[in-house]
Amino acid sequence: MSQAVNDLIKKVAEEAASEVDSTPEPKLSVEDVKWPIDVKIGRGLEGAIAATSKIGYVNGQKGWLVYAGYNCFDLAQHSTYEETAFLLLYGKLPTSKELSDFSAKLVRHRSIPESVVEVMRHLPVKEAHPMGILRTAVSAAGNFASDSDNVSVDAEREVSIQLIAEFPTIVAAIGRIRQGKDPIAPNPDLGHAANFLYMLTGEVPDEDAARVMDVALILHADHGMNASTFTTMVVNATLSDMYSSVVAGIGSLKGSLHGGANERVLYQLEEIGKPENTLAWFKEAQKNKVKVMGMGHRVYKAYDPRGRIFGPLAGLVSDRDPDVARLYEVAKEVDRVVSGELKDKKIYPNVDFYSGLVYKALGIETPLFTPIFAVSRVAGWTARALEHLADNRLFRPRAIYTGETELDYRPISER
Amino acid sequence: MSQAVNDLIKKVAEEAASEVDSTPEPKLSVEDVKWPIDVKIGRGLEGAIAATSKIGYVNGQKGWLVYAGYNCFDLAQHSTYEETAFLLLYGKLPTSKELSDFSAKLVRHRSIPESVVEVMRHLPVKEAHPMGILRTAVSAAGNFASDSDNVSVDAEREVSIQLIAEFPTIVAAIGRIRQGKDPIAPNPDLGHAANFLYMLTGEVPDEDAARVMDVALILHADHGMNASTFTTMVVNATLSDMYSSVVAGIGSLKGSLHGGANERVLYQLEEIGKPENTLAWFKEAQKNKVKVMGMGHRVYKAYDPRGRIFGPLAGLVSDRDPDVARLYEVAKEVDRVVSGELKDKKIYPNVDFYSGLVYKALGIETPLFTPIFAVSRVAGWTARALEHLADNRLFRPRAIYTGETELDYRPISER
Repeated sequence: MSQAVNDLIKKVAEEAASEVDSTPEPKLSVEDVKWPIDVKIGRGLEGAIAATSKIGYVNGQKGWLVYAGYNCFDLAQHSTYEETAFLLLYGKLPTSKELSDFSAKLVRHRSIPESVVEVMRHLPVKEAHPMGILRTAVSAAGNFASDSDNVSVDAEREVSIQLIAEFPTIVAAIGRIRQGKDPIAPNPDLGHAANFLYMLTGEVPDEDAARVMDVALILHADHGMNASTFTTMVVNATLSDMYSSVVAGIGSLKGSLHGGANERVLYQLEEIGKPENTLAWFKEAQKNKVKVMGMGHRVYKAYDPRGRIFGPLAGLVSDRDPDVARLYEVAKEVDRVVSGELKDKKIYPNVDFYSGLVYKALGIETPLFTPIFAVSRVAGWTARALEHLADNRLFRPRAIYTGETELDYRPISER
Repeated sequence: MSQAVNDLIKKVAEEAASEVDSTPEPKLSVEDVKWPIDVKIGRGLEGAIAATSKIGYVNGQKGWLVYAGYNCFDLAQHSTYEETAFLLLYGKLPTSKELSDFSAKLVRHRSIPESVVEVMRHLPVKEAHPMGILRTAVSAAGNFASDSDNVSVDAEREVSIQLIAEFPTIVAAIGRIRQGKDPIAPNPDLGHAANFLYMLTGEVPDEDAARVMDVALILHADHGMNASTFTTMVVNATLSDMYSSVVAGIGSLKGSLHGGANERVLYQLEEIGKPENTLAWFKEAQKNKVKVMGMGHRVYKAYDPRGRIFGPLAGLVSDRDPDVARLYEVAKEVDRVVSGELKDKKIYPNVDFYSGLVYKALGIETPLFTPIFAVSRVAGWTARALEHLADNRLFRPRAIYTGETELDYRPISER
């Protein structure tokens, strides 16, 4: 693993440790949660409780992101995406043996059926939304996977591992076909993140690039009950198969209220153009109520821990691409100006603010950013769908009918 | 329209009118619903309120099914699927001009891109679950449809009409390819239901068959906040596109807790084999706590109005296929025995009990039953997704974290 990247994250983690509120959390067990629960429910199921979970925890007040007990600074520093995915799927960190078995399984499932590539060749890959292509390719792959009406958690977990393995291959193929190039077969000697970059660019990445990608995947693997995770769980709870569930999750992540923010950050940085334009741009944005993309977060009132890590990562790789170097200077200034001007509101860079620059520096084109989010998040999607499946309950909220009930049907000639 | 079918439904409707509780419903307007609302919430969002709606209403105590103000007996008797879809999408019955414009639009969108057929040819159509193939084909078609990140209700309604038009073509193509035959191009001179049967069987259906199919599509078009409808709304509320939303709905309908019951009814009727075996079979089923498929319904405590209509429809078409004629006799006996034995529990045939026999009599193979459900329900899915989009709110329930929060990361060698 790259020493430069790990040293950098270690430094960020130490800084964070001195700033983040580390008051221990009150412990809550499943038994403490007594259904049914009295809640005030708003539109969009605001305030509703969909499930209990041991998979991931976000404390936005404190700036904590925890996967199955481990905070994301530790995981970013010491873990790999493979290990993190294992943690989410099994609820514990693996032993050496478990990790090598799990990694071998991922390697084995990396190849997608040739027919899925053929399917992609019949789609307008260059013109259509890459998330639409991803949705279709994953759906196509599902028809070749094991699929039984008698679903079991263990069988669906195996299907989940297959999905986690196939996602990078599919997204890399989309990237290649978009550029008029042929997809590249996976390299079994490379780790999950390095192999992804290899299949995308055709070059084995250096240690820094591979580790930065790995950390990016770790940091996006789960984030509470977000819309795509909830979608995946809703589909899975009908006892549908995991491919159907994940395909639905892709559809949600495609929505502009959910995915795509780091793309929009890059477009905004391009719009600002130069560091010295920042203050004027920001004043204008405030006047016109234009949102500053990538700054602030609905959940985090403290510094988004992922944003903390992505900033320095962007600095580390920015000199790989002169465009990124230029935009990174703009980004730092936007970060400084916005954080400063909105000090009272505690607005910090979120995960999306610097991640686009990181991906761009690694040679990834902007339209692939949301598919890459999916490459990572598929671990969280499947882990939470499996957790719910183990004690399954169909999701069945109701609607309140506010229409007419007794209209007389009149023939069309009388309307 | 077939006089025989309409006379029969008229008779059913008159019988129902004399039995169904027709006490007027208390009126509720959107303004009466004051968010946030105090509720008791159970697992699976039981008791939660996801939205208000004017699109459809089910009163299970009374045995009412209402679409935008009109009860399903009136619609089954007088309406067509095209008109019903218009009613759901626009909230009112169309004028002659509106209906002919709407129908023309449906006809225009019936053809699917040749590439989508090519995609299907690369899938294991004969072996895989037909809902997985449908999911993939609809997803593929989405890449050829208009798709903007700036979604509007009007634009998405046009996309919805395209989806409603494409579904029968895709499902018929699946049916053909499953049988090793070539898909058949739509016939613009036929109505929605008749054209579907034509594309599936290669023969223009007679009036009775076309009307029976039409009624079947009308009766499945919407049914409250079921799992696939909710799924479609959840995805759409991220401001994703309507194809992504509907693809997710297909995934939910594939789940054995949701779709597929009428398939299972047929298998059960085959298992019983003869009318005279029914009582012994039922006693054994009760002893072993085996569920009688297609009898009773979670929501309906009164007779499911769709079940009321499908029974006589099955009788009307049963002599078209000796197998159906035989199974219909078994079904009638199961209906009689189970309704009689469980009289106190008010167990009646639901929509799934006789619908499979109807489809089989029309020459449709059993694995296509759930895709046909989708051919109809896509109207309800899109209508409710559009209704929510008009006053959009992301669906964002929360999870209660019951795991650890401060575990120490130990190196793998120490685990």
